[in-house]
Amino acid sequence: MSQILPPGVTPERFAAALAGFAAIVGDEHVQTSEEVLAAHQDEFHIGDPGRHTPSAVVRPDGVDEVRAIVRLASELRVPLWTVSTGRNLGYGASAPRVRGCVVLELSRMNRILEVNEKLGYVLVEPGVRFFDLYDHLQREGIALWASVPGLGWGSVTGNALERGLGSTPYGDHSGNICGMEVVLADGDLLRTGMGALRDPKSWQLYKGGYGPSPEGMFLQSNFGVVTKLGMWLMPRPECFRVCDVKFEHEDDLERMVEVMRPLRLDGTIDGQALAANALRAAQNLSHRDEWFERGAGFPEERMPEAMRRFDVGWWNVRFGIYGREELVEIRHRIAQEAFGAVPGARFSSVLYPGDVTDDALNPVHRLQAGIPNLDALKIIDWPGAPGRGAHIGFSPIAPLDGSEAQRQSRMVRDRAAEYGFEYNGSFFFAPRYLSHVYMIAFDRDDWDEAQRAQELVEVLVRDGAGEGYGEYRAHVDFMDLIAEQYDFNDGAMGRFNARIKRALDPQGILSPGKQGIWPAVAPWSPSANGSPAPERALER
Amino acid sequence: MSQILPPGVTPERFAAALAGFAAIVGDEHVQTSEEVLAAHQDEFHIGDPGRHTPSAVVRPDGVDEVRAIVRLASELRVPLWTVSTGRNLGYGASAPRVRGCVVLELSRMNRILEVNEKLGYVLVEPGVRFFDLYDHLQREGIALWASVPGLGWGSVTGNALERGLGSTPYGDHSGNICGMEVVLADGDLLRTGMGALRDPKSWQLYKGGYGPSPEGMFLQSNFGVVTKLGMWLMPRPECFRVCDVKFEHEDDLERMVEVMRPLRLDGTIDGQALAANALRAAQNLSHRDEWFERGAGFPEERMPEAMRRFDVGWWNVRFGIYGREELVEIRHRIAQEAFGAVPGARFSSVLYPGDVTDDALNPVHRLQAGIPNLDALKIIDWPGAPGRGAHIGFSPIAPLDGSEAQRQSRMVRDRAAEYGFEYNGSFFFAPRYLSHVYMIAFDRDDWDEAQRAQELVEVLVRDGAGEGYGEYRAHVDFMDLIAEQYDFNDGAMGRFNARIKRALDPQGILSPGKQGIWPAVAPWSPSANGSPAPERALER
Repeated sequence: MSQILPPGVTPERFAAALAGFAAIVGDEHVQTSEEVLAAHQDEFHIGDPGRHTPSAVVRPDGVDEVRAIVRLASELRVPLWTVSTGRNLGYGASAPRVRGCVVLELSRMNRILEVNEKLGYVLVEPGVRFFDLYDHLQREGIALWASVPGLGWGSVTGNALERGLGSTPYGDHSGNICGMEVVLADGDLLRTGMGALRDPKSWQLYKGGYGPSPEGMFLQSNFGVVTKLGMWLMPRPECFRVCDVKFEHEDDLERMVEVMRPLRLDGTIDGQALAANALRAAQNLSHRDEWFERGAGFPEERMPEAMRRFDVGWWNVRFGIYGREELVEIRHRIAQEAFGAVPGARFSSVLYPGDVTDDALNPVHRLQAGIPNLDALKIIDWPGAPGRGAHIGFSPIAPLDGSEAQRQSRMVRDRAAEYGFEYNGSFFFAPRYLSHVYMIAFDRDDWDEAQRAQELVEVLVRDGAGEGYGEYRAHVDFMDLIAEQYDFNDGAMGRFNARIKRALDPQGILSPGKQGIWPAVAPWSPSANGSPAPERALER
Repeated sequence: MSQILPPGVTPERFAAALAGFAAIVGDEHVQTSEEVLAAHQDEFHIGDPGRHTPSAVVRPDGVDEVRAIVRLASELRVPLWTVSTGRNLGYGASAPRVRGCVVLELSRMNRILEVNEKLGYVLVEPGVRFFDLYDHLQREGIALWASVPGLGWGSVTGNALERGLGSTPYGDHSGNICGMEVVLADGDLLRTGMGALRDPKSWQLYKGGYGPSPEGMFLQSNFGVVTKLGMWLMPRPECFRVCDVKFEHEDDLERMVEVMRPLRLDGTIDGQALAANALRAAQNLSHRDEWFERGAGFPEERMPEAMRRFDVGWWNVRFGIYGREELVEIRHRIAQEAFGAVPGARFSSVLYPGDVTDDALNPVHRLQAGIPNLDALKIIDWPGAPGRGAHIGFSPIAPLDGSEAQRQSRMVRDRAAEYGFEYNGSFFFAPRYLSHVYMIAFDRDDWDEAQRAQELVEVLVRDGAGEGYGEYRAHVDFMDLIAEQYDFNDGAMGRFNARIKRALDPQGILSPGKQGIWPAVAPWSPSANGSPAPERALER
């Protein structure tokens, strides 16, 4: 029996809940051992790791089990924290916002329910990982591509629901959702869009439905548990060309963005481009001790050395161009000419067939080919002892505008230096916006450094909001802080969310505190645990 | 003083409401004259025109006036029916579902608040019509295109909220919404996505926000009043080619769809294609009396004559290919070759520069050029005396699959014949679905014919749902019937909507009955007026 209890739940009630859960999913799928609970803390925690420790992990298999679990949890008022596979490192992984929540882990629900090659979609359960989907498509010889995020071990569903991004033309993962099945807190079962028909023919084809579309309400949300997700997949292109452009100077970011905008807007470059500076390469291929004393930040004067050693520019952008070869080659020429106008820019590219296999591909081009991998994990070995590095993300949105990109990049760089961290910025290029990801890498065994990382995120969140840059996702520790920045009309969005939460989950059992959305019921309030995030009224 | 009262509202309370509205918007913008009320009935009514007559029309100018109106309406429990410009002919125009609702008409709020040429978007108020937007872009020489629906007099906002479609690459209008401002029933004011920041830089650039995305909840909805809408606009292309393909036989629809699918999926054809049969041409260019006795349906044996006379095929598809000339020409060749494989298909096309003006364009290519017009109104002169024709739409979704298209087309054709109507089918081609629009044209002075049109829609709605084809929009008379078809899990979607409605609009004052969503409060129930639609429980 675990010693951790959900907030406001008596040992007796908790025991009844565990017994009930076991009756639904089987004893072996209700886990309360210290090892399992410790593994469901935030692996990259800052401060007390126990702040986000769950009281139990329940692993249902199938929608009926999920419905029974939420019904019981509503009845006994036991809060759940839903994760698909819980691999969202840097944002809390499977750790609940509130200590003692029962983790509802959906990884056993890992069926690929339908793949439609002709119409380009898949219907999956939340436990299906990018690796699983890729393997399935390869094994069955299906001419469709998935778009994958940096880490392929994550859930296709979880990533899309959290608004994750990939690097193919289908890289806006939440934008490619078409149709959901959702379990509500009272156990009711909703299918959205055309799925609301009894026997629909277009559930994964037409995003709309009849009347309001609720899908968006289940993104980054605690209003329901998504149990099936439709996703559009890209038909395998005849070929694709992956292009790399290296820029000499920090200030070239502005020109890079200005060159990119019209090419992204008119589809000449259809893949989501990804830019990163030289420090990203250094992080993947060396240890920071080779470069500077911890707390000093990367010495600017050694950037030329890093650029030479790793054969990269100060900024580097990579993108794919996809389609029929005769069209790809023209679009490639247009892009090459456009970037050629930037002094010092070095352009290179590789043409691949659409059915390229992993072993025939330059490994750094995997994301552009939709091939899942774990290469991005290398950052863990940058700051600390092997395997003891950690990172936490700051992810603001900027207009796809050169001067805004430069401004936001400098804002982060300068604050990072102030707190003793290097600036390893990267940007996804959508047709109209930039998704800036700054991953602060720190040594999780260095308390002082971890504290500085925490403080840096806090100040960046406030700085960003002051400049009109909103963050689009958050580590559990910062969910309230970021929600507070969305304060138009004295927090109208927070009031709206609180009303919906009360209507759909009156007992407040689904993921309390997620993205700063709290139920009205007392025990799950933000002050119920040792969160470092500022207190926040349930409703204004 | 009007004799019509909102349901459940006493004359005294109604008088107080009108006085309050007048104090907010000015006397001249609260209208209760018979002429105005008659003009806000359904122009294309079937049966008693008074069934959808409002009690008053209130015309606010500005979000503060809207907020004050809904606050007062909530306080006095006076139901409103929101329309932008109320020009949605065939679906009820500005007529409220429930007789006696006060029409909240937003046509005075017609400001184009921002146009961003560089990043391709516009922020508009709901009264801005497609004509207004086009004129503004032309006058200011802004290199952006709007995508326009069949009738250019409608509201950009209203059309997008109702999931309208156009014929350019940006033809999925609701899919191009980015950021909303919404007044809730209690007068609270919400801005969605990045608009929830106090001073955002990416409100019209990034569709997501932080936490759940509520935009979809305000599509075809009575959960709020949208007072500002962000829409992405297409950068003006270098050129575009409008292609017309004519097919000899009814059964060619199947081949047409099969040829189109891969070209739409891979973007070779980026415009939303639009197919129509020969009867559409006949409707635009002749009167049905020339062809058949009313009630007989179009005689199949005269189709060859119609095809010759109007120089069209049995089926005809039109689509644009947009972009840089060297790419457009290759894609054009690919499309031409693909359709060349269909026996008897006749392909023709015209190349236009991206800055083509209306007078340099073949008028039938206006939709492909994003130029608003009223050409589609010609259908009104097909069935009756000049100006006395009417139409009512049946709009089911089908997979972008040849055999499904053929099946759905035949289903509608056969039922239409049974009820004595001709089948003038048309299809929008999205990359994965078909939006089938069947406009039943009838003589509004012929009671028997109007009744048959009504019965035909009813039977088609049921037939369609039985085959898994959902309708995506509805005339006010059929809103309940269609909502009933969405019965997965005993109507889970209806229960969900009812809960949200109660949470956001507890007095039930916003557009009661819209898309079958009714408040829990009694006076606005579907039985409160002489609706021909079946009775429907408020909640299951």
